[in-house]
Amino acid sequence: MRLAKSWIDSANDPDGAFPLNNLPYGVFSTGGGAPRCGVAIGEMILDVAAAERAGLIALPGGPLLQGAAWNALMQAGAEVWKALRARLTALLAEGAAEAEALRPHLVARGEAIMHLPFAVAEFTDFYASRHHATNVGTMFRGAENALPPNWLSIPIGYNGRASSVVVSGTPVRRPWGQVKRPDEALPRFAPSARFDIELEVGAIVGQPSDGPVSVAEADAMIFGYVLLNDWSARDIQAWEYQPLGPFQAKATATSISPWIVTAEALAPFRAPTPERARDLLPYLREPGPMLYDIDLSVDLAPKDKPAVTIARTNYREMYYSAAQQLAHHTTSGCPMRVGDLLGSGTISGPEPDSRGALLELSWGGRTPISVGDETRSFIEDGDTLTLRGHAQGDGYRIGFGDCTGTLLPAQGDPYAR
Amino acid sequence: MRLAKSWIDSANDPDGAFPLNNLPYGVFSTGGGAPRCGVAIGEMILDVAAAERAGLIALPGGPLLQGAAWNALMQAGAEVWKALRARLTALLAEGAAEAEALRPHLVARGEAIMHLPFAVAEFTDFYASRHHATNVGTMFRGAENALPPNWLSIPIGYNGRASSVVVSGTPVRRPWGQVKRPDEALPRFAPSARFDIELEVGAIVGQPSDGPVSVAEADAMIFGYVLLNDWSARDIQAWEYQPLGPFQAKATATSISPWIVTAEALAPFRAPTPERARDLLPYLREPGPMLYDIDLSVDLAPKDKPAVTIARTNYREMYYSAAQQLAHHTTSGCPMRVGDLLGSGTISGPEPDSRGALLELSWGGRTPISVGDETRSFIEDGDTLTLRGHAQGDGYRIGFGDCTGTLLPAQGDPYAR
Repeated sequence: MRLAKSWIDSANDPDGAFPLNNLPYGVFSTGGGAPRCGVAIGEMILDVAAAERAGLIALPGGPLLQGAAWNALMQAGAEVWKALRARLTALLAEGAAEAEALRPHLVARGEAIMHLPFAVAEFTDFYASRHHATNVGTMFRGAENALPPNWLSIPIGYNGRASSVVVSGTPVRRPWGQVKRPDEALPRFAPSARFDIELEVGAIVGQPSDGPVSVAEADAMIFGYVLLNDWSARDIQAWEYQPLGPFQAKATATSISPWIVTAEALAPFRAPTPERARDLLPYLREPGPMLYDIDLSVDLAPKDKPAVTIARTNYREMYYSAAQQLAHHTTSGCPMRVGDLLGSGTISGPEPDSRGALLELSWGGRTPISVGDETRSFIEDGDTLTLRGHAQGDGYRIGFGDCTGTLLPAQGDPYAR
Repeated sequence: MRLAKSWIDSANDPDGAFPLNNLPYGVFSTGGGAPRCGVAIGEMILDVAAAERAGLIALPGGPLLQGAAWNALMQAGAEVWKALRARLTALLAEGAAEAEALRPHLVARGEAIMHLPFAVAEFTDFYASRHHATNVGTMFRGAENALPPNWLSIPIGYNGRASSVVVSGTPVRRPWGQVKRPDEALPRFAPSARFDIELEVGAIVGQPSDGPVSVAEADAMIFGYVLLNDWSARDIQAWEYQPLGPFQAKATATSISPWIVTAEALAPFRAPTPERARDLLPYLREPGPMLYDIDLSVDLAPKDKPAVTIARTNYREMYYSAAQQLAHHTTSGCPMRVGDLLGSGTISGPEPDSRGALLELSWGGRTPISVGDETRSFIEDGDTLTLRGHAQGDGYRIGFGDCTGTLLPAQGDPYAR
């Protein structure tokens, strides 16, 4: 695949995130107006809600673009997803006859405020990068017991909290919680002192299911992908997570990037999962490559200081694909819904600087990392964390747009009143 | 409190579930019509959607009763909850002037099909009965390590799957999943052979929050209660749950009783939590009694055989109240939403026949229980499990209505096609 040229010049920049090949879906507002559906193209956003009202986009079963979320389009199914992408590609391609008619519906991206692009039905988070699981397991249980016995058989996941999902740019408040150091007999209620990020990719379920689905069916149910930062309070997690898993440690916020990059846009970048260390049960075997080659990075900017890239990795490092995770999610008959969000789990590579969490980068705080003229074991108040990602094509990129958030200091004791 | 008399005779039966003192909220349909809001009174249902349209009920900010769920009323807040209850009490009390006007809006309960009474936003399940946690812990980790170190400090909970919540009467299909016996080296994909119930009470969050709330505030946010059966595949759970908690083992179905019994109706039955074995952190301390004295039981009926009561216990056996659980749920800043459902966790008492799960009743299958002329370790195909509950007043009862479900046999291998 090569760069597809648009009549919008800024979309033809080979280093830009949003060429005609991408066409990601977001929800934006301008000047205090109502949030509405838009499509990123170069430095602009096409107001597709207005374009649909103007008759420039007509979808089967439409209108589908008038809400403040992309769920109606997702619900309409894969044929309609294809129809919209084809129509947008035609409208925005170099030489399109509709260019003049579309111009009034373009908004400068820099002037837009972004909102959550879809209504999150339920949120599930996985633990599916082998490097990450091995690192965390080595820290907590020793190198011999690093991977839990089930890890090579199951894409381990747990249910998260959909209400805590926020769009990139939303500040995150350092939480309070029950914490207990190993040398303490009893827990204290205190602000988290080991607040962390998790670099993940989120898969968005675009079609429902009501029984077990195969990996191929699951793959076809996935509408698109976002970057996802699963903010994590490691000290709260360490005390609470046995025996039923993380709970409040993961409930403060989960940030996602504002643009849904569609599975169709990513199709040229499909990549296989790594070689299996143990044969998978047949229901988890993939009929083809179902990961994607997406370069990922994490920047950390201390307050009033420049950002430093603290980790670089790739989505190919996952041991299980989103399609495998979704198929496993349905084995028990669990109904899946339009708008379900599946976090990949922290994506770590094999190198020390390819780890997707400060917990790993600083090895549990034992080896703080350099961030410019400062060091970090965990996030400090005022730090801004930014996830970035793109797939690199031949003279173009499929970019995700940043997933960023600044940590605000803890409030006073919420119960001291 | 005594029985409050109604002009509907069947509501004055001292052993009936739905006297004027109760007035629980459900969603029903008749003759294939649309589901609508109704209130149980004796053997009848008052069609409150119709009564509101007829002008017999007028709520601030209304109409609020025209949807197929009670979420709009919950959203309206506690003052409106009180206003509706006061109006219903007046309309249905002995001697009410509106009796003749209401009669056309009464439906026989026996002719109604019940639906989920509210849209479940998110579902959280807890592990908060000390007897249950001690029994399970003893089986899995030995008597010395029965309670996890955090158990006496934290109301342990995990996020469940809202999409799997179904109304009483919905059949449940035995799930497939990854299972591995201790003597097996690798897992198999097979139907669960240790499928179980969990006798619980569900608390329904009726008001949202956007930051930490106190136990008293949490108590005021709870709209009402239902009986809840958290169907559980013990063999799937045993293999999957380390390190991130139960996932597919709990995702097949969670059944709830069809009538929301309001916190107001239960107010005369408030009861304290048991004495603390360890001081709680201040944020978890209760300003007053926040459990309820609710007698609970479980019946098991093998296919085509009479039901046998296999367990009797009481909601007072909980170590943590729903208000404590909800307060803990918000500590990290986790936003709570109207329609969130909190399962109490399995409610077991101190006696062998007061245990709320077959896992405990049969002690992990080692001591099968008698059920008429059969025995049971776990649920067999065709078994019908029914939870019952009521608070006993002076000459009246606040009943919950049954929470029942029949286990259907597993389907053929869902992936063999």
